Amino acid sequence: MQNQLIEPSLVDEIISKVSLAIGTEKVNLQEALGKTLAEDIHADRDFPPFNRVAMDGIGIHDSMLNPNGNTFLVEGVQAAGAPQLTLKENTNCIEVMTGSMLPEGANVVIPYEWTEKQGDKITVSDFKHAEFMTNIHQQGVDQKKGDVILSKGQQITSAEIGVLATVGYDQVEVIAAPKIAVIATGDELVAVNEVPKDYQIRMSNCYSLQATLKDNGCQSDIYHLVDEYDLLKTKIENLSNEYDILVFSGGVSKGKFDYLPKVFDELGIVKQFHGVKQRPGKPFWFGITKDEKAVFALPGNPVSTFLCSNRYLLPWLTHQLKNNQDNLPTKAYLDVDYSFKKPLTYFLQVKTYFDETGRLMAQPVTGGGSGDLSNLTSANAFLELPADQDNFEKGQQLPIWFYKK
Amino acid sequence: MQNQLIEPSLVDEIISKVSLAIGTEKVNLQEALGKTLAEDIHADRDFPPFNRVAMDGIGIHDSMLNPNGNTFLVEGVQAAGAPQLTLKENTNCIEVMTGSMLPEGANVVIPYEWTEKQGDKITVSDFKHAEFMTNIHQQGVDQKKGDVILSKGQQITSAEIGVLATVGYDQVEVIAAPKIAVIATGDELVAVNEVPKDYQIRMSNCYSLQATLKDNGCQSDIYHLVDEYDLLKTKIENLSNEYDILVFSGGVSKGKFDYLPKVFDELGIVKQFHGVKQRPGKPFWFGITKDEKAVFALPGNPVSTFLCSNRYLLPWLTHQLKNNQDNLPTKAYLDVDYSFKKPLTYFLQVKTYFDETGRLMAQPVTGGGSGDLSNLTSANAFLELPADQDNFEKGQQLPIWFYKK
Repeated sequence: MQNQLIEPSLVDEIISKVSLAIGTEKVNLQEALGKTLAEDIHADRDFPPFNRVAMDGIGIHDSMLNPNGNTFLVEGVQAAGAPQLTLKENTNCIEVMTGSMLPEGANVVIPYEWTEKQGDKITVSDFKHAEFMTNIHQQGVDQKKGDVILSKGQQITSAEIGVLATVGYDQVEVIAAPKIAVIATGDELVAVNEVPKDYQIRMSNCYSLQATLKDNGCQSDIYHLVDEYDLLKTKIENLSNEYDILVFSGGVSKGKFDYLPKVFDELGIVKQFHGVKQRPGKPFWFGITKDEKAVFALPGNPVSTFLCSNRYLLPWLTHQLKNNQDNLPTKAYLDVDYSFKKPLTYFLQVKTYFDETGRLMAQPVTGGGSGDLSNLTSANAFLELPADQDNFEKGQQLPIWFYKK
Repeated sequence: MQNQLIEPSLVDEIISKVSLAIGTEKVNLQEALGKTLAEDIHADRDFPPFNRVAMDGIGIHDSMLNPNGNTFLVEGVQAAGAPQLTLKENTNCIEVMTGSMLPEGANVVIPYEWTEKQGDKITVSDFKHAEFMTNIHQQGVDQKKGDVILSKGQQITSAEIGVLATVGYDQVEVIAAPKIAVIATGDELVAVNEVPKDYQIRMSNCYSLQATLKDNGCQSDIYHLVDEYDLLKTKIENLSNEYDILVFSGGVSKGKFDYLPKVFDELGIVKQFHGVKQRPGKPFWFGITKDEKAVFALPGNPVSTFLCSNRYLLPWLTHQLKNNQDNLPTKAYLDVDYSFKKPLTYFLQVKTYFDETGRLMAQPVTGGGSGDLSNLTSANAFLELPADQDNFEKGQQLPIWFYKK
């Protein structure tokens, strides 16, 4: 039976209909980086929590801001981390440190740089337009107690880590990482630390897949299944119970030992498509289990696995985890003329750079085709050349998919 | 004593003169992601290692490519992962699977899609321009045995992980992560899980610093030192022996309890500068220990710590580790007019986006100044507005420093 090949855009549409069953979990603050918040975070006090001194200097009362300068008797020193002092006389001053509470009774801070000290007296000859609340970070101007300062669904980067610490979250509720199984198939595969026979190769796709997922905050476990029908069936049934997402590499071409589509069918994993009008990665298979779990069966050629995981699996997963990274451009300009004459979408390996006007340019890095994994290390993205066009001109803007960010 | 403030560009120049004493370490393949190769990686065999079948179909001899088609007796099936078969008669064929060895005697692969099977015979009515070596990925075209396929200094992303697995590296020599101590100072700081008194705040800078480093592949340990002169001296001496890099937050302003510069001096940590003509982060202190280790003492305001670590510490560290990430633009276009009238370089918090022509645009996100960490979560980068200009026009291209990538 010939499979109906579908367009890449339809692949996105079909996959996007599958929702990952998302759980949440509590993690320690120091483990939260890269995760997505599963709760709103509220300010537990005003920020700043008090009128905070913003410069090292002296705290005085604004009635003393004489245009001709003034001299103050030092009453004391207000340190950061010390209880609030009180300025007893408006004509006096208290030395104040950055980050300390503004002493009760003071309402202006004059930096040391404008002062001169003699004994226990400090003179300011020029107040330089200082006024009520100058050099004071006033209580509550940034946030009021109870304000939502981080929202559910927000990604936790280093800035959010700082905020979480500030408001007292040493643990935080985040979107739980899905359980992902990465499954290599094929009798030709041997372990990385083995010396392959002439006709064998080492397992590599499962490791690059695992790394792609890890780079995006998702752990995964690796399995290797040999091409034996009954064994495949039992193992895959178990894996589909145990994991949230199954990602296969190999076993979906038209070969005699490409049992996967049949096994999936018998296990009630319903095929959504088998075959995409693209190069590389044409034999890509995708299905849904009875429990609505996604099964990605990617073609086994290294570059095909790599393209399919970066072009389809990752954007879907990222979207599911609300783990949006939208700071990279989604389009780039081809920097030479390029032809691809087959009626397939071609994912061209490119090296990107920015020209002097800041436009993202894409330079083709052509290598040995879908088996040539090492060529991928010289490029950093795939440029998507649509099927309905044969000749692409220098300067044409096209969708781009980064795999090195 | 008044310190001589220096320009941001001079900061880069001074810091760049410090070389991190880089060691190497062997790590497991699955731990190597994000690290930098400390050895050249050679192909241990040709790639492909044999003439590899690129399509499921039949292997035949090119003398049989008759324009009128031909019919072949099937001699056998060549599976992937099985020893090489031999085609006994040029008039016969062997069924071949993607990834398998090309049978001895065959030199063309015809995909199943062009064939028809009847009993033990397979007919091809149209060879569609197939010729010698069509659909065969020839031995050694991608790499020859002994070729350097990954070079020392190259960053290990998911693509490199795949290559390393392919050539048998289950362990790999990488640049060792430096030992970094992140040290919070200040008596006003309490632990994240404590409820601060009125005049106290929770430690947060050390956590955002740690996260910034972690996001860039570097682990660090956190310490909190109170403002007690002798204690500071003993502890810092120990830390400077134990760690490769010391990063302080707080204690470098002009306050009475800002002991760090004096302690550093007594410990023989030679000041390179104290004070940068910038906002935020003006009191930034940097020095070098007797063992040529870098000591970054960052101002304690949350946004100041954050700016200084992302603008100076991180680019230096990344360069030292040869861990180049050059896929993000280094300049952006201001998307509104903006004024900053002080003779300081101003690091403006911005939210970036790409316009329809693909230019990176920067939109100011103004908040509560250097204490307002939560404003950072709404922006994703700092736009560097140079000191020698007061008014910046919409459309001006300026250096940009991302902290969310």
